[in-house]
Amino acid sequence: MAGTRLTPQRETELYGAVLDLLREVGYDALTMDAIATCARSSKATLYRQWGSKPVLVARAMRHSKPDQSHHVDTGSLRGDLHAMTALTDESQMERDSALMRALFHAVHDNPDLRQALRDVVVEPETSGLKTLLRRAVDRGEIAADHPALPFVLHMLVGAFVARQLIEDRSVDRAFLVAYLDAVVLPALGV
Amino acid sequence: MAGTRLTPQRETELYGAVLDLLREVGYDALTMDAIATCARSSKATLYRQWGSKPVLVARAMRHSKPDQSHHVDTGSLRGDLHAMTALTDESQMERDSALMRALFHAVHDNPDLRQALRDVVVEPETSGLKTLLRRAVDRGEIAADHPALPFVLHMLVGAFVARQLIEDRSVDRAFLVAYLDAVVLPALGV
Repeated sequence: MAGTRLTPQRETELYGAVLDLLREVGYDALTMDAIATCARSSKATLYRQWGSKPVLVARAMRHSKPDQSHHVDTGSLRGDLHAMTALTDESQMERDSALMRALFHAVHDNPDLRQALRDVVVEPETSGLKTLLRRAVDRGEIAADHPALPFVLHMLVGAFVARQLIEDRSVDRAFLVAYLDAVVLPALGV
Repeated sequence: MAGTRLTPQRETELYGAVLDLLREVGYDALTMDAIATCARSSKATLYRQWGSKPVLVARAMRHSKPDQSHHVDTGSLRGDLHAMTALTDESQMERDSALMRALFHAVHDNPDLRQALRDVVVEPETSGLKTLLRRAVDRGEIAADHPALPFVLHMLVGAFVARQLIEDRSVDRAFLVAYLDAVVLPALGV
């Protein structure tokens, strides 16, 4: 059966198992053996389909939160950003935070993981945001050379990370909307 | 010699050893035995003077970056925030980033460490920033109920964390000043 690929449903189950293990034991203790056992698959299949642990982890991350921001188009930047906060439910936001913690330290020690996450997760995730900002520029809501434009992602990451660090609470939708209205939109002059 | 405390100089050396070990092996693998050996002290002395590992780690963090922001008073918020970026040299910013990474995951699994860091590091560190913002309110630069005021720390944390995550680079002074001018001050309407 060399060359056989998992069915989409089995693939989804396997990605779920990878993220559960990752939250539980962290990246370093996550082995291809454990994933194979947990997903009732074989190590050979895992390597054939994904090539390496960093790529498998990155694809599992990506699969768990498909970027839906490309479908958002309300006609104003404020409307678009608010709509984006409604794309992820709040229990998912908490699970995302747990994953980010599990990966944050590992990323530093594993350049392959860093590269895989950047290619598979960060680039596609931020392309939706970039599209939405470009439309705002096209509509004339923001000047193309507005000095805050390069920092929108930094502001948003701050909202997620700082709430956990400073307030010891996960981000929820009400907090995100307040932050968008008080920080992100005024910084952009909208 | 029960009750004997370390001299200030020996204390400084010991704090340095704690942070070096922390950057090297991480929080979980950092033991009181290793600290005692490395600092040519005894475990009994460590426990007598600091009580616990989380408190010792938090005090070492605090000692490494005494809050000098209370001395900053240039007469304008822009001037004060820019002056704060000059209080830490850039090699120190890189060492700080390495420490933050070492602690970020540990904080989640260790409520005692989280509490100690909040009491010993976060509260005092942010009191300088709060003083500086209160003066700006008193001078009439910002309305006391400005909606962005509660989020200044979130914006700043975003600058530090996101640069590493998104751009894979440590924060430097030029970046911080650009971020203050493009994001923090405009969000505050200054």
